[in-house]
Amino acid sequence: MNDTIKTQLEHRSIRKFEDTPISDEVVETLINVAQRTSTSSFMQAYSIIRVKDESLKQKIAAIAKQKYVGEAQLLLIFLSDMNRNASIAKAQGVTPTNIESFDRFFSSATDAILAAQNVMVALESLGLGGVFLGSILNDAQELIKLLKLPDYVVPVLGLAIGYADQSPQLKPRLPKEFVYMEDTYTLPDISRLSEYDAIVQEYYDLRDANRRIDAFTTQVASYVQNHCEGRKKLLEYYQQQKIIKY
Amino acid sequence: MNDTIKTQLEHRSIRKFEDTPISDEVVETLINVAQRTSTSSFMQAYSIIRVKDESLKQKIAAIAKQKYVGEAQLLLIFLSDMNRNASIAKAQGVTPTNIESFDRFFSSATDAILAAQNVMVALESLGLGGVFLGSILNDAQELIKLLKLPDYVVPVLGLAIGYADQSPQLKPRLPKEFVYMEDTYTLPDISRLSEYDAIVQEYYDLRDANRRIDAFTTQVASYVQNHCEGRKKLLEYYQQQKIIKY
Repeated sequence: MNDTIKTQLEHRSIRKFEDTPISDEVVETLINVAQRTSTSSFMQAYSIIRVKDESLKQKIAAIAKQKYVGEAQLLLIFLSDMNRNASIAKAQGVTPTNIESFDRFFSSATDAILAAQNVMVALESLGLGGVFLGSILNDAQELIKLLKLPDYVVPVLGLAIGYADQSPQLKPRLPKEFVYMEDTYTLPDISRLSEYDAIVQEYYDLRDANRRIDAFTTQVASYVQNHCEGRKKLLEYYQQQKIIKY
Repeated sequence: MNDTIKTQLEHRSIRKFEDTPISDEVVETLINVAQRTSTSSFMQAYSIIRVKDESLKQKIAAIAKQKYVGEAQLLLIFLSDMNRNASIAKAQGVTPTNIESFDRFFSSATDAILAAQNVMVALESLGLGGVFLGSILNDAQELIKLLKLPDYVVPVLGLAIGYADQSPQLKPRLPKEFVYMEDTYTLPDISRLSEYDAIVQEYYDLRDANRRIDAFTTQVASYVQNHCEGRKKLLEYYQQQKIIKY
């Protein structure tokens, strides 16, 4: 097994960071890696905003409802960006008639998310830790305002980065046959998850900081019932940015 | 610079594969890496289908309109999968009231896309090559039928993998200031892209196989005007799977 895969198999999300700053050189390397990522139809339809301003960072931490967002040495927001390409087209006198479809949005969001994971692998290979922040979408409307995003640009995913000040255990994953299939979709018997539930409970039981001892299946049951109000409106907020029309 | 980042900075999409088969051990490693990827709220709301059946593979190549899809030694389709968790909830007598929102779909699609990029990094570290296939969504309705996807499951991204039978040049990326910003969204003057356009034209000019010599900005202008009919219907097809309701 090579070092890359060893690091990938040891991935943990890091939510507690040292004060140690991240050098400009490291930031530059991470952005270079992001830019090297595959991009749909060569459109490079994403952008990355680094949040440096301390008060802005705290406002985003408030949206995410996670203190550690404000404590990260490096906070990146990955955007789906169709504005740049619309502007490029307009500069040539071309009306961008086909950028408001869901498909085009989804291609640009895919660009952004692929780049984000590439950065995650790179930062972990450098001994840094990170955590993805879907939670920045708790109030996408507010975040759009804070980052001054124009039409055709929306936030997709955050990434908080720093030197780890914790060493969490590996979080157990579903048995492979529940996730990996051949040729057609198949779902194994759900009752076979009881063993996995026990493993997840043991993981929580052994975890230092937090005493939650939910099984996997009970967490799922709670997830599909509860939903934060701001996130129920995500499609509406994206539509307000004109990025999804049909 | 470490080997991981070196490999990431040398990423090329590979579209011509040797006949050399990929060992089961390598496939297992790639799936292990996929499963280790970060997942929103621990929901692991994605699945991966390996397309082994030859006739199925050719049908998918026809949807993608790319011959190389049928020639890949390993073809993976990454799915947004809310069906598994809906089933887990139902088995506990819980009605999954909140899985039909765009936000929940987007979280599960993000899971799938992050996993796909993690696999890309892993396979390149092993000396394999790959190419992402947004083109599987040219006819999502047909693909859903072929893979027998139930409600709450949709295809998100394909990945064709094999030993490279080509060594393409690095494709030039946008100047960093067009993609990377601080604190708020800023778009540099579009006219500053003329130098990049010249670099892109040179890249196409030097490319062995293909004699296309489009600049970047002219490709963008074409992209925002043209749109394949099947992809215009992507949201509709996803909605038919009940995965996006509001």
